[in-house]
Amino acid sequence: MITREEQHEAKEYAAAELEAAGVALTDAERAAIEVADFGLSRLREQGLMLLVYVNTDRYCAKELVLYPGQACPEHRHPPFDGGPGKEETFRCRRGLVTLLVDGRELVLRPGEQFTIPPDTLHSFRAGPDGAVVTEFSSASRDELDVFTDPAVRRATVVA
Amino acid sequence: MITREEQHEAKEYAAAELEAAGVALTDAERAAIEVADFGLSRLREQGLMLLVYVNTDRYCAKELVLYPGQACPEHRHPPFDGGPGKEETFRCRRGLVTLLVDGRELVLRPGEQFTIPPDTLHSFRAGPDGAVVTEFSSASRDELDVFTDPAVRRATVVA
Repeated sequence: MITREEQHEAKEYAAAELEAAGVALTDAERAAIEVADFGLSRLREQGLMLLVYVNTDRYCAKELVLYPGQACPEHRHPPFDGGPGKEETFRCRRGLVTLLVDGRELVLRPGEQFTIPPDTLHSFRAGPDGAVVTEFSSASRDELDVFTDPAVRRATVVA
Repeated sequence: MITREEQHEAKEYAAAELEAAGVALTDAERAAIEVADFGLSRLREQGLMLLVYVNTDRYCAKELVLYPGQACPEHRHPPFDGGPGKEETFRCRRGLVTLLVDGRELVLRPGEQFTIPPDTLHSFRAGPDGAVVTEFSSASRDELDVFTDPAVRRATVVA
């Protein structure tokens, strides 16, 4: 659970970081930035901010924005609709992000990218200056994600 | 056909425009920028510069950079491998781009985007300051594109 103030602050932070990364946004997009705390109620440590550009039944593109040191908890994208599950490419735009993929640690700096195979356990954490990461992928169905921590809830509740 | 000098100049232009749009590139990416004249030998009028971030068998992401007034000739992405053909979303990052999609004209400015259905005729032209456009799509197979002008050759010959 997050407060309305935490949500507002996180959206403002994400919009400012995207602008600093050279990303032009429409007003509608700025308003549509999603704040996710994964039900853990420690947004600054566990969570992220998302902006979905497009998500068709074939491909998806998003921006992910993280506070300094903020992490997205370990999860995988299982098979669905007869396909192998979501495959995704993380491209760092700003700051630094450390990926943990199937036990292997990788650091991405601006201009560096990595593709995570479907149904593969992964988590990621921003460096000390936060991170802006573009995600290119096959179709995205966030609600199907399988998290390792059973306390995780993908839908954020705003108090 | 383009000269080696035209190719070099176009790659330098594209790298500078991407940097001005806030896009961080690795040295390998800067070197991999593709210059396409579509076999028409009038690069400044008909052509574009491309950087492919990723192209798996499921999705693709590219940056497209155009000189002021430069246009990509009309074409469509036909069905292949049992799928409906490439579906693509153009998102303008810098400058201005005019899309012509099935006879309908749309202008995209930074932060604006449009999704072109598979197998649909389209062309696009940069405004007076050029354009940087990110393309999110299903898997890309440029060599299968069907161009309206029979003189078009997708592979660029460098003299």
